[in-house]
Formats: sequence, structure tokens, C-alpha cells
Amino acid sequence: MYGRLSRRANASTVKRRRAPGARAGAAQAASPRDQVRAWRQAHEKQIVGDFATLLSKPNVATTLADVDANAVYIQGLLETRGFTTRLLRAAPGTPASVFAELKVPGAKRTVTFYAHYDGQPISQKGWISTPFEPSMRTALPEAKPVDWKDAARLDPDWRLFARGAGDDKGSIQALISAFDALKAAGIKPSVNIKLLYEGEEEQGSPHFASLVAQNLETVRGDLLIMGDGPMHQSGKQEINFGNRGFVGFRAVVYGPLKPLHDGHYGSWAPSPTVMISSLVMSLRDEDGKILIPGIYDDVRPVSASDKAALAALPDVETDLKKAMGLGRNVGGPRLADGYMRPTLNIRAIHGGDDGPNAANAIATEANASLDFRLVPGETPARVRQLTEAWLTRQGWFIVRGTPDLATRLAHPKIVRIDWDAGESIATESAMDSPAAKAVAASISRTAGYPVLKLPFMGGSSGMAEIVNQLKAPMVGVAIANYDDNQHAQNENLRLGNLWDGIEVYAGLLADLDW
Amino acid sequence: MYGRLSRRANASTVKRRRAPGARAGAAQAASPRDQVRAWRQAHEKQIVGDFATLLSKPNVATTLADVDANAVYIQGLLETRGFTTRLLRAAPGTPASVFAELKVPGAKRTVTFYAHYDGQPISQKGWISTPFEPSMRTALPEAKPVDWKDAARLDPDWRLFARGAGDDKGSIQALISAFDALKAAGIKPSVNIKLLYEGEEEQGSPHFASLVAQNLETVRGDLLIMGDGPMHQSGKQEINFGNRGFVGFRAVVYGPLKPLHDGHYGSWAPSPTVMISSLVMSLRDEDGKILIPGIYDDVRPVSASDKAALAALPDVETDLKKAMGLGRNVGGPRLADGYMRPTLNIRAIHGGDDGPNAANAIATEANASLDFRLVPGETPARVRQLTEAWLTRQGWFIVRGTPDLATRLAHPKIVRIDWDAGESIATESAMDSPAAKAVAASISRTAGYPVLKLPFMGGSSGMAEIVNQLKAPMVGVAIANYDDNQHAQNENLRLGNLWDGIEVYAGLLADLDW
Repeated sequence: MYGRLSRRANASTVKRRRAPGARAGAAQAASPRDQVRAWRQAHEKQIVGDFATLLSKPNVATTLADVDANAVYIQGLLETRGFTTRLLRAAPGTPASVFAELKVPGAKRTVTFYAHYDGQPISQKGWISTPFEPSMRTALPEAKPVDWKDAARLDPDWRLFARGAGDDKGSIQALISAFDALKAAGIKPSVNIKLLYEGEEEQGSPHFASLVAQNLETVRGDLLIMGDGPMHQSGKQEINFGNRGFVGFRAVVYGPLKPLHDGHYGSWAPSPTVMISSLVMSLRDEDGKILIPGIYDDVRPVSASDKAALAALPDVETDLKKAMGLGRNVGGPRLADGYMRPTLNIRAIHGGDDGPNAANAIATEANASLDFRLVPGETPARVRQLTEAWLTRQGWFIVRGTPDLATRLAHPKIVRIDWDAGESIATESAMDSPAAKAVAASISRTAGYPVLKLPFMGGSSGMAEIVNQLKAPMVGVAIANYDDNQHAQNENLRLGNLWDGIEVYAGLLADLDW
Repeated sequence: MYGRLSRRANASTVKRRRAPGARAGAAQAASPRDQVRAWRQAHEKQIVGDFATLLSKPNVATTLADVDANAVYIQGLLETRGFTTRLLRAAPGTPASVFAELKVPGAKRTVTFYAHYDGQPISQKGWISTPFEPSMRTALPEAKPVDWKDAARLDPDWRLFARGAGDDKGSIQALISAFDALKAAGIKPSVNIKLLYEGEEEQGSPHFASLVAQNLETVRGDLLIMGDGPMHQSGKQEINFGNRGFVGFRAVVYGPLKPLHDGHYGSWAPSPTVMISSLVMSLRDEDGKILIPGIYDDVRPVSASDKAALAALPDVETDLKKAMGLGRNVGGPRLADGYMRPTLNIRAIHGGDDGPNAANAIATEANASLDFRLVPGETPARVRQLTEAWLTRQGWFIVRGTPDLATRLAHPKIVRIDWDAGESIATESAMDSPAAKAVAASISRTAGYPVLKLPFMGGSSGMAEIVNQLKAPMVGVAIANYDDNQHAQNENLRLGNLWDGIEVYAGLLADLDW
């Protein structure tokens, strides 16, 4: 049933390959990429309809029942297509990863494709549509609702708005559609396929390490392909070879037990809003430098090959500043250079009543939410230790719950620290392994130009646990437009990115070979 | 109808004074204070019922219709008691002040009593009852609901919870009940009475200066008594001779136009949460010192008499720390010493999504809400100027509205500053004027001990405008328990404070003389 590509295919042979009896000209559509494209063009509304159905399932990572419903639905999609599937859980009551496997007769390599189907919270203000009622909209900046079902044609610059569209259900849809396209064209995959679709990535994957450890042989592959994260801002195809690690925490500082009139007590009672500002500014400066002593000690110098790869990336910074309304940037001039060092972001800071409810009062407490991105060499445990040591040196007494009265009276400066459940070390994989080179060659063939290479991405991934446990080569292949608003309101996927993603995944499935 | 007190009454004569035919012992109740007390004891439930009705009228300062309904209701209460009343407004559409006047035959002095009937916003979390459904509750810390209507007796440690109970409708209720008590006892006021009850104090009195200027002769008195603010923390009767001034603002700083994934952009995109923390820390330090150059230049040294008055205040700081769960204080050790210098409080700081909605993102903006308390010699205009000059020197480009794209791109650091509509200079009045001495003598007689004297209070007051325009002596007479949670959730007035307040006001009405 499958028409198998030559195991020795390369860019030139693939381009020359024709289906038996193919004719010259537009009607020929004989290359695998063109066959996939033709199938997609004939099935665009069906693909969008399927994707909208997938996106209509609420997937906020903290709501287990919702997440499980997604898992079961995706499992069904893959069973229908002939995959053997299982739901893997680290323990009862934790989110499932959807595992699916397809053995291909004659294939010698196994590729494990990773993505995640859970999503970030949805309560950010300013959604122009309902997060789980997918809304097709015209190109930015208008983004007007459009009736895609009755449209004569789907504009590739249209975007489908929904939580999870870009991060990360788009990768799942692209792979499934790629599989359908190859099947319709009679092209047999060149490798055994394993799919591992995580359900708690947006929580920081608190149980994923255990899940992977318990199922190491099940998920094992000769190559790991991570389908998560945005594409390069230039819009060019890009692959990466790892992710930064992650560790985050929430800090709460305490003032008076009851709000106090700030005229009568403002010169005397400690102010939690000031305390939290001070705590923040003791951890990093405005330019992004982390001020925790020792935090950079474990950071490895950037290698010559990484420097070369970074230098080869197209300039995007000027356009990014314009698009984001930024009159400056912090850190160094090049965006991706910053991925080579740890970053501390203040996700949120809150204290006191805001807006029309503001009272002239001293708040009872204030909090900040922070997260580190870690580079190879750093560990979450060491970062936690250095952070707490630095806070302690500054006079903070660290507690793990709400302090009682005796604790409050005994310690002048108290901070409650709650570390995020999910944390990870960075992952990195060689840029020049045979498997990595095969991925680069495949995508370059599909794209028609040399794929961009990023030593590792700025973001983090649940994939880190598989990479670090399996020690297999890993390549990140992202398909989402960079401006997909992931983690924010109005998340979206540009249709053209979905179309390109289908071709990229189909290419990988069809001709990966090393 | 009125039994007039001797113009030469003093503590000893008042204590010796008896109603004609009075007998010895408890039944005698012949001193004015005792007569007032006896009337109150006989009418406690009626007083509480009237007070609860007053408190049930929503009075959030920003809702004009609600505020107006309060004004009309209070006007009616005073008309019924024989006062000539008017509603004064600075302009149509601004909150009314209730003005009421009662001329007393033979009286040579006129005393203008000030209070305000509007209240702070109510949306703070943690109200144990509904802010405008007054709830009687047992003594702290239990504060359990109690059926006062059917109770055998009202415990003076019970508290009535409602927005405005302590700040500042309690003063209005105390004066009205004091008037009723004197009338019932046949005691004629010793002075002509003017009442001026403001309706926008909690907004910072943006129109009150104009209102006073337009009605200067109407409101003029030989003495101004301000009935606002809490009593001394020791529970002792206290008078003050002014208030600090006020000027506040809200600052908004800007990051990317859309939230950005903090893994991909955290090392490159400016962070509004960090920027607002940095802005805050550039204005004041954790110990309360204001860091704006020149801000202390206009501050007058504390006079010897003020120092003596401050030194005479009882120690309350140790108990306050215990009550508020504070392991330290900022500034100097004595609470009231801090009132002699300006204070900058950070009312609120906000940026990014909090709690379960937190996203690993760089926020688009962050804000802080701040207010200064000013001492004599400082002006809001100068403080505004110094603050903005300091921000500008630090590289902030100040805007007055949301910046457009061109502005964002042209300026690396933008802060939107919105100064509060209401602002005031400090007020101060001589501690040793004849009128001030008469007030001190009256309250000392009522209380049975020498009243405490505070040069000025930490808080601010709409009264500042009358004081500064009329140049009449001013004395602040507060009756609310210090722990009335003013400006916060669970505002309350302790019943015993209302009872004492009625006696204090009755004493002032009956025997003020200079």
C-alpha cells in the first residue's frame, strides 16, 4: 500500500523522483511534497474543521478532567489511523500522555515525535474571541471574524484563534494531516513512528519525568523530534537542538495583619508593596542581569560552533521592536544570544487594590511570581539553593506556608517561597549527529532553502525528560508563527503555518534516513 | 427650653453642677455628662437603629447618586431637629456638602463642625459582612454576629460593621445624638452651631476648595472642629491641630504590545514588572525614606512645643506591633513622630497574571499607585514637580495617556503619570489659642483626664480647605476606635466609642466657651 522512498534519498534524488506515469507541468504534482500539497489543497476545509474540533476541547493544564478528555479524543484519532495507542500516566490522578506507535515494515529507525496537548490558563484579559470556540480571522492587524466554511478559498494569512492553536495542538494536527496526506498519496513512512503527546507541559511537567522513567522502553526512539515552540521570527524554517531548563517560584511578603490607613501608619508600618519591589530588584536588574551571587558560575562558555550558528541567524530584532512597540531591548542586541545564559523573568507582581478600588492603605501582603530559564550546566536544585541563600543573606526569613503570629513577631522580614511543581534542566543535543543532519536535510528539501539552526531555544519543554533519560539525538521542529500569542490572550495559528507544517512533517515521515 | 451652662464653666464647676432638685447617688445624674449618659443609656437601641439606617445607605465616594442620597437623608435628619439646611455644591454634578446651621440665642461664638459622609470603595476582599448591611458583632477577635435588637443589653465592646462606620458617619451620628441628648436634658448649646458634612473626602476632595471658596461666609466659624480620623491607639481621648496634606498618582509602565513567552523573549524584551519595581525603589526605600532629591527641603524642623506634645503621648508601639503581627517597624520608633515628615506610600503595585492564571509571559504593562502625605511647608505642586523631575532624570519619558506606537518606539522608558484629582496642603493650627484651649478643657472634663494633644494627624482631610481659607482655629476631635479598619474591609465602630463620642460632642456643644 505504501510507496516507500529510497533509503538513500537526498535533496536531488527526491526532487527528481516522480510517481509512475507523472507528466511534466503543474498537473504532474509528482514530488512527495507536491503530492502532499495537492492533497492539502483539496482538503483544507476538512483539515481546518478537524483542527477546530481539536481546539474546541478545553485543555487548561490544571483541569484534569478537561485534559483527560483531550487525551481520549486524540487517542481515538490515532487508533482510527491504525496506530497502536496507550494512555500513559505517572500515577493515577495525574495527566495522561497519549502514546501511539506505528511499525512500518522494513523500517530500521524509530522516530519519537513529541508534542503536548494541554494549554496555558485562559483568563488573561483582552481575548477577542472565546478561547475554546475557535474563531477564524483575517490577517493581522485587522483580525476580523471570517466565515471560512463558506469562503471560496482560505487565505493562508488567516489565523485560527483558540487556546492551544499555536502551543501546541497545531503540531499534533500537522502530523496527523501529514500522515493522512502520505497515506492518500500512497507514500509509506520511512521510519517506525512513535508519538508521545504530553498533558501537563504547561504546568511545568511535574510528573513527566516519572512517566518517562516508567515507560522508557516504550517511548524509546533513535531520534526524538520535538514539535513545540514558535518558528523563527523571519518566518523561515528553523530547527533547534535543545531547550532551556526551568524553575519557578512564587514569593509572598507580609505587612500588617490588617490593611492600615496609610496616612496614619505609612511612615511606620512596613509596606509589603515596597518589600516585594525590593525583593525583585535584589534578584535582577532592569537590563536583565541576575544579581544572585554565583548564579552564572555553572554557565558554560558558548562554543565556537554555537556562536557560528547564532551568527548565521537572520536579523529579526529591528522588525521585532517595531512589531512589539519597544523603544529598546535589554541584554545584548541579538535575541537568540540571550538563550545561552540563564534568564529570570518576573511573571507577575501584585499588592494592594488597583484602579477604582484603590484605597489609601498599606496592604497586608504582596507577591511576585518568577521563573528562571536555565542553560546546560545549571540545575534547578542549585538555582533554588542560590536564590534562597541570597534572600536569607538579605535578611529574609523563608517560610513554606502562611506564617503564624509568633513567626511574624519573631522575624522582621518574612517571605513565603513556593517553588513550582514542575522544573527541568536544559537539554542539548549535537547539531552534527547523523540523525540531526538527516532532519536538517529533510526540512531543507521541503522548504527549498537551508533550514536555520538554533543551538537551543529560549523556552523549556517537557521533552527535556525524555531527552535526558533516553540520551537519543533530539531535534526541535516548530511550525507555529512566532506571533502566535502563545501563553497569552488571542493565541492563534496562521493557516499558512499549518500548511507548511503539514509538508514539513510529511517530509520527515517520508524521507528521514540516516 | 434650653438650660444654658455658665460661660465660665470649668472642670470643677461642671462636675459640681447639678440639675435643680437632683438627689445624691446614681439616680441623681445631675451633671450634663451624666444627663447625656443617662439619656443615651435609655435610648441605646434607638441610636443604634438610627446609625444602622445611616450606614445602610451606600456611600462610595465615586458614585454620585449614592452620595447624593446620603446628603438628602442627612439634611432631613437636621431639618427635623430645627437646623436650617442647604446642600452646597461646587458645580452641578459634583457631590454636595450638607450645610446646617442653628443659631442659639445669646451665643457669641460660632463653631463649625466638619465631618464627611462619603466612604472608601468596598471591593476589598475578606469582608465578613456586607458593607452596606450593617452587622452588629461581638468583641474582637471573635466578631460573631449578635442580635442586638433582642439583646438584654448592648455590650460597649460590640462593634457595628459597615463601610463608613468609623470613617466617618460615626462622627455625624455622635453629634446628632449629642444634640438630642442635650435637648432632652434641657441643656442649651453654648455656641451657634454650623455643620458642614462633605461628600467627596474619600476622593481627595477635588471640588471642595471651590465649594468652600464659593460659600466662605456661609461656613465661617470662630472655631473649626474636625470630626474625622481615629482616636489614639491607647483608647484615650485625643485632639489634634491639623492634618497632613495629600497628593497621589498612578504610574503605568509599558513593555511589549502583546504578552511574550518569557522563555523566548525574557532575556531581550524589557519587563514592565521589573520596570515598575525599579521605579518604586527609586522613589522610596524599604525604611520609608523618600529618595526624590529635594523632597525634604521644604520640611520645617519640628518645634520644641510639638516635640514636647509628641513626647507626652503614651507608648502604643509595642502593642501595635503585636496587634498587627509586625516583627519590626520602619522609620523612627515612635509612630506619631513620623507625621512630622512627608511619607510616600505605595498603595498598590500590579503587573502580569497572578495565582492559578499566571502565565510564563512578559506582561504588556505594569502599574503602581502611590500617595504622598505632606507636612506644613510642602505643596502638592512642588511635590509633583520634584517627582516628575526625578523620574525624568532617571530616563523616564512621562506621558499623560496611553502612548501610541510612534511614542513607544521613540522612547526607551515610558511612564504614564496620572495625578489624583484630589490634593491638599497640610493644615496646622496653634495648640495654644483660646479656642483650642477651650476644646481641650471641655474634652478633659468629659473624659476625666487630660486630653492627649497631637500637633497634627498622619492622615489628610477635606477640612484642610476650610482651615486654609478661613484661617480660623481648628481642632480635630476623633471618636472612632483606632482599629476601625477605615479604608479597608470590615470597617467598624466600637459601640463604646460611639457612646463616648456622644458625650464628647455633647460636652463641646454645651460648654465651649472662650
